[in-house]
Amino acid sequence: MPMRIHSNISVVEHVMRDLLLGGPVALAAKYHLDGGGSRARAILALDAASALNLDDTAATSCACAAELLHNASLVHDDLQEQDATRRGRPALWRKFDAATAICAGDLMISAAFASLAAHPDLRRALILTHEAVAKTAHGQVDDALARTATLADYHMLVGAKTGPLLALPVRLALCAAGAPGDEIAADIGRKLSVAYQVLDDLTDVDDDRAAGRVNICVLFEASGHSRPTAAMIARGEAQSALQTARNLADRLPNNVGIAFCNLADRLDSALMELADAA
Amino acid sequence: MPMRIHSNISVVEHVMRDLLLGGPVALAAKYHLDGGGSRARAILALDAASALNLDDTAATSCACAAELLHNASLVHDDLQEQDATRRGRPALWRKFDAATAICAGDLMISAAFASLAAHPDLRRALILTHEAVAKTAHGQVDDALARTATLADYHMLVGAKTGPLLALPVRLALCAAGAPGDEIAADIGRKLSVAYQVLDDLTDVDDDRAAGRVNICVLFEASGHSRPTAAMIARGEAQSALQTARNLADRLPNNVGIAFCNLADRLDSALMELADAA
Repeated sequence: MPMRIHSNISVVEHVMRDLLLGGPVALAAKYHLDGGGSRARAILALDAASALNLDDTAATSCACAAELLHNASLVHDDLQEQDATRRGRPALWRKFDAATAICAGDLMISAAFASLAAHPDLRRALILTHEAVAKTAHGQVDDALARTATLADYHMLVGAKTGPLLALPVRLALCAAGAPGDEIAADIGRKLSVAYQVLDDLTDVDDDRAAGRVNICVLFEASGHSRPTAAMIARGEAQSALQTARNLADRLPNNVGIAFCNLADRLDSALMELADAA
Repeated sequence: MPMRIHSNISVVEHVMRDLLLGGPVALAAKYHLDGGGSRARAILALDAASALNLDDTAATSCACAAELLHNASLVHDDLQEQDATRRGRPALWRKFDAATAICAGDLMISAAFASLAAHPDLRRALILTHEAVAKTAHGQVDDALARTATLADYHMLVGAKTGPLLALPVRLALCAAGAPGDEIAADIGRKLSVAYQVLDDLTDVDDDRAAGRVNICVLFEASGHSRPTAAMIARGEAQSALQTARNLADRLPNNVGIAFCNLADRLDSALMELADAA
């Protein structure tokens, strides 16, 4: 069944900015949002909402909550890691300052919760969202502390840091529809996050090695593989995670799984492009 | 009418910690909470809830939301201002590190919203809370940028930064009861915040002067007053703000104003103690 094409990603962009309410910190947050990004979490929410026949208000609510939280985590993460650029422009903390970056992230977290005011099962949505923020925060600190890791550690670290906010848009949509599948969506989030991180790792291997950050390619090189072989095994690891995600997605009700499969397809293409470029 | 003595500030302490959900970042946030503090915002919520005959669940929800947001702002503010100590102990960012401090503040903001899940008018409570966070964030950045100010600027800066989270506990309680007075409570928050800030300024005058931060005593000294006279005028400014707050509080329904008057009395006593010590 082909997905209904939804035209409201531009509505999501608009509502995210409205939720920031104006003022100097909102200006900084908008600078970050204007830098673009894949909006993968917003698209996940809209795809899932479409499969579940949610109305546009509920769909936008799920999309804005997840996308604002993700972008808040990027703003704070860039400051924590002292990453000077984001999407080819100065990161928010470099364009403004550290204090503004902290406040802008705070504002985006708050705006994400405010967007849930339009969610039909607000009480449950609040709890799901808080759990995702808590897990992301813990994952972010564990990740910042980790310097070496086994492959099992890698899956755990990455799944804990990136999984919750990848699963959240679909979990919020399922919750809005009163549909089952919440646990499966959480599992899929963890699997997709591995593919996401491997993509990052493949492009950042030199920087991560220099900074002593966990990187799956460095991990495989450390166990004796050549650089090209390490990259190949890493891609295989990502592809296998994507396949598991697809298999799990088939078990979701109302073709909601298509939302995750669309993202898996995009990540697969990106992995293949990187392999071709190598 | 004497206030009913509520025994549930200890429940608030317990629920705030429960809302942090465990993990390394929760541990850091608990370290901050364990440092104590006046819990003025929690007490405002409980006093207001008592006057409005709210049940304990709703009262605790209002108290935890406001107190967690206030403490999140302290954790982030200490990092932004590089203040090394808080309540006689190393500030969170010094005890742990900057990355953990950012994540701990994020977690506390998220937990504050999660505590609203127990609020009877959740949708409206979300909006009120988001507005307070947004105003606080803007105020924090304006305050960090401000280096000189007139007395009018001072009232505006302080009211914008500290007022919203002082008014929030009472506004959430009024909202839970479906009672009027929301705008008056917001005004009172701005007035009380001036008294709060003058108290801070009176104790921090040398540090603030050295750091070039806005301080009402420095302001009056700059216009030609001796140090003791500047302090005396500053105290008068605070007492006048407290009196305006009390007058406004009389206009709140169901004796809710007593919540604010109790706080005004405590601030008055603290101002007099400082005057005696001077």
